[in-house]
Amino acid sequence: MFLSLHYEMNRMNEYKIASTQNPRVKAVVALQQKSAERKRTGLFVVEGRREVKHCVEAGFEVDWVYVCEEADENDDEISASVGMEHVVEVTRGVYEKMAYRGGTENVLAVVKERKLRLADLKLRKDALVVVVERVEKPGNLGAILRSADAAGVDAVLVCDALTDLYNPNLIRSSVGAVFTVPCVVCGSEECIKFLKERGVKILTAQLQDSELYYDTDMKGATAIVMGTEATGLTDVWRRVADAHIRIPMLGKEDSLNVSVSAAVLMYEAVRQRCGK
Amino acid sequence: MFLSLHYEMNRMNEYKIASTQNPRVKAVVALQQKSAERKRTGLFVVEGRREVKHCVEAGFEVDWVYVCEEADENDDEISASVGMEHVVEVTRGVYEKMAYRGGTENVLAVVKERKLRLADLKLRKDALVVVVERVEKPGNLGAILRSADAAGVDAVLVCDALTDLYNPNLIRSSVGAVFTVPCVVCGSEECIKFLKERGVKILTAQLQDSELYYDTDMKGATAIVMGTEATGLTDVWRRVADAHIRIPMLGKEDSLNVSVSAAVLMYEAVRQRCGK
Repeated sequence: MFLSLHYEMNRMNEYKIASTQNPRVKAVVALQQKSAERKRTGLFVVEGRREVKHCVEAGFEVDWVYVCEEADENDDEISASVGMEHVVEVTRGVYEKMAYRGGTENVLAVVKERKLRLADLKLRKDALVVVVERVEKPGNLGAILRSADAAGVDAVLVCDALTDLYNPNLIRSSVGAVFTVPCVVCGSEECIKFLKERGVKILTAQLQDSELYYDTDMKGATAIVMGTEATGLTDVWRRVADAHIRIPMLGKEDSLNVSVSAAVLMYEAVRQRCGK
Repeated sequence: MFLSLHYEMNRMNEYKIASTQNPRVKAVVALQQKSAERKRTGLFVVEGRREVKHCVEAGFEVDWVYVCEEADENDDEISASVGMEHVVEVTRGVYEKMAYRGGTENVLAVVKERKLRLADLKLRKDALVVVVERVEKPGNLGAILRSADAAGVDAVLVCDALTDLYNPNLIRSSVGAVFTVPCVVCGSEECIKFLKERGVKILTAQLQDSELYYDTDMKGATAIVMGTEATGLTDVWRRVADAHIRIPMLGKEDSLNVSVSAAVLMYEAVRQRCGK
């Protein structure tokens, strides 16, 4: 129904959308705000020139691109790659109604979800994988994806997820890395089975009964497993670990942000693999 | 004027503040919202049990503690350390008016600023210092402080600051580390002079003309210098550097969050100093 509405409106493509009451505007707002709406339609919203570009380059199928009337000419590149017939101009007021962020970017896209499964992943012999169990904040998961992209991580496996991958905060804090890093949402049990079958070493980040992360071998196929900031990993993961690793806490707070911890561990693996 | 108002009201200390029109409530809101008001009064606001506790333990002088009527008994500890005569009970409605965050913590304090100067710092022989030039987002600076506490960093030097240290977002994202890590706001030129005089090695994080960070010696007194995410460091810092260092970017985005980069570099220094 949502889709057919879209296509019906397409015949009026030459018009600029000027009313915030337009059903297309309402549909975009619903996708921004509601995880259930994203699930129902299989669609999500991407904001920002850089993010839309990464999304298109990664092969996601773009349904519609909405461009604010004040956007500059750089959008020709996006228009060319998705096809002009998928681009709709909107007024400033309409854009600001649809946009989740401050309206500085002037471009947003409605994109079809792509569900990657564990079976779809092709891991290199020395793959570096990050597993995140029950992460709560979309912003933290987005930040982990951004760092995972930078560290050349092969896949991020999101176990027992409490957020969907296409939450606007997640996309924003990932700066588009949610499109460039292979990302699978799955259960912990199937994830463990997958890693064990492929001989991937499981390193769980935990403070108790652990060795210092920089004294731990991270060469060869390795999964770095992170729990929540508040409660850490569940026993399911602790039990199957090949090693428990910890980042030393040398201050008064005993606390690191989960995305910061993940980055420190990922880059230690990079160092061990690439350093002198 | 602000202070005298406070002391005048103290005679009514046995009353619970119930009106959001109360001048004390307005004064707290002004401190939360306005950097200029913090500067004028030399006061700032700390929210949350953990943060207030760290602030008190670090020896900051607490002017007033405001406790929501629904707060639990754990606040006895805070009351004991600041003195009951500095504690004022407020209604839920008043607390929510004063609080910057969602009102889950039920405790906030008005605290006197403490200005640390470079000359006040006593650096160890092998000190690890983090310098941040022109950082824009208070949340990023707070996150850097949180990681600096965990990594046992000796001081964070904030050069040519675009945010004040007592911005509510900064305190929040530092989880109180802004109180536990010695923190100096200063100009780049005086900072460079200070580091050079003490023989502290200057390592500037930059992508161009740089060596990989993990191939760089970080033992001995070292300053890790970070610029902004958007434009990096100014030439002032690049010119005086003992080495330019970079974190390898192995992905498609070419981008790491500045607080994540800082943490990766700090922990490399920890590894070199403490690892096997």
